[in-house]
Amino acid sequence: MNHTLKTLLSHKTIRNYKSDPIPDDMLSHILEAGFRASTTGNMQVYSVIVTRDEERRKELCQLHFGQKMVEQAPVLLTFCADFNRFNKWCRQREAEPGYDNFLSFFTAAIDALLVAQNACVAAESFGLGICYLGTTTYQADKLIDFFNLPEGVMPITTVVLGYPNEDPEKVDRLPAEGVVHYETYKDYLAEDIDRIYHEKERLPETARLIKENELDNLAQIFAYKRYSKKDNLQFSKVFLDAITDQGFMNHKE
Amino acid sequence: MNHTLKTLLSHKTIRNYKSDPIPDDMLSHILEAGFRASTTGNMQVYSVIVTRDEERRKELCQLHFGQKMVEQAPVLLTFCADFNRFNKWCRQREAEPGYDNFLSFFTAAIDALLVAQNACVAAESFGLGICYLGTTTYQADKLIDFFNLPEGVMPITTVVLGYPNEDPEKVDRLPAEGVVHYETYKDYLAEDIDRIYHEKERLPETARLIKENELDNLAQIFAYKRYSKKDNLQFSKVFLDAITDQGFMNHKE
Repeated sequence: MNHTLKTLLSHKTIRNYKSDPIPDDMLSHILEAGFRASTTGNMQVYSVIVTRDEERRKELCQLHFGQKMVEQAPVLLTFCADFNRFNKWCRQREAEPGYDNFLSFFTAAIDALLVAQNACVAAESFGLGICYLGTTTYQADKLIDFFNLPEGVMPITTVVLGYPNEDPEKVDRLPAEGVVHYETYKDYLAEDIDRIYHEKERLPETARLIKENELDNLAQIFAYKRYSKKDNLQFSKVFLDAITDQGFMNHKE
Repeated sequence: MNHTLKTLLSHKTIRNYKSDPIPDDMLSHILEAGFRASTTGNMQVYSVIVTRDEERRKELCQLHFGQKMVEQAPVLLTFCADFNRFNKWCRQREAEPGYDNFLSFFTAAIDALLVAQNACVAAESFGLGICYLGTTTYQADKLIDFFNLPEGVMPITTVVLGYPNEDPEKVDRLPAEGVVHYETYKDYLAEDIDRIYHEKERLPETARLIKENELDNLAQIFAYKRYSKKDNLQFSKVFLDAITDQGFMNHKE
């Protein structure tokens, strides 16, 4: 097994960090590795915002629902879909840009996410730990203010970066047969679902969560506590409104 | 420099492939590396569809605007946002899922893209070439039919995979200062834009494209030929309609 594959297969999300700073040249390598990721038409329609300032990390911690690691880790990388730079370039060259639409938003979001994942892999190859923050989309409006993002720029995801202060077990994944389809999508029968989720449902951690949450099973914990319909609807509105406010929903000819 | 970083920094998109098949165990490793990527709440709300059948590759080639590599390469991986499996699991466990909204779609799209990029890095570590197809979003409706995707499943991106039959130069990237911001977003002045795009604009390839397209500059080639407003609006509609049809826009309480 080569070193790269080993890096990829060893990934564990880290939620407890040392305060040791990340050397500048290491951070540069991580970002450079990010920027080598594929990008639509080589447009590079993304930006990365580096947060290292302690006060700013504390404020970001609050915005990300008070997750302690956000102020604990020395570096936060906020990956943004960014057509602002490209639009400015176009206008300066007498080319009228047509990137104020949903397709352009999504194209830029894809770009930003491929960069983010490359950066994470590079970071882990240096022995750093990483954690993605899903709260970035939930709090898009507040992050737009916090980072002063102009029209054409949307926060997509945030990565926490630092030296691990824990060594957790690797978490479970569904068996590959549960997520891979050959040639065409093979929809799931009831017995397939039981088989695919069997291992996850019988983990000691699952039993612990069910007891703690006083619910019948793990699926109910997801549907009613962790990712509830009410929250999803609220955050859908926040995120779609932000996409609109940032100028990506102008669908008139 | 470690092997992983070298793999990441060596990335080049490959558009010309040998017909040699990819060994099954290599493909398994690539997918397994994909599935170790971070995923929101460990929900793994994605699916990967493997296309190897020659006839199906020819059909997919047509759907992806006739790009020859799509039928030439031995394997295509179509990465989908997938809440169908998770919803089925919830319903079988008497948990009413609330994932028929835009936030859930975007969460699942993030999941799918992180898996895709991990799979690409793993593939390149084995000496394979990769190419992302942006046409996946443009043709979402047709791909949904082609793969028979049920409600809750959306195609997000496609990766072409195979042994390279070319060794292209690495393409240019903008200087890091053009895409990295520290602490807060630093908007671009006219002189910043000129500096950031200077190197790209003076490439021999750029001069060739301008001549070929009979336009004034590279920005006009992007805005009027490669990614035009008209196309973007059309594909925005296709993609948003597909998101709606696949059940991700039910925003009523």
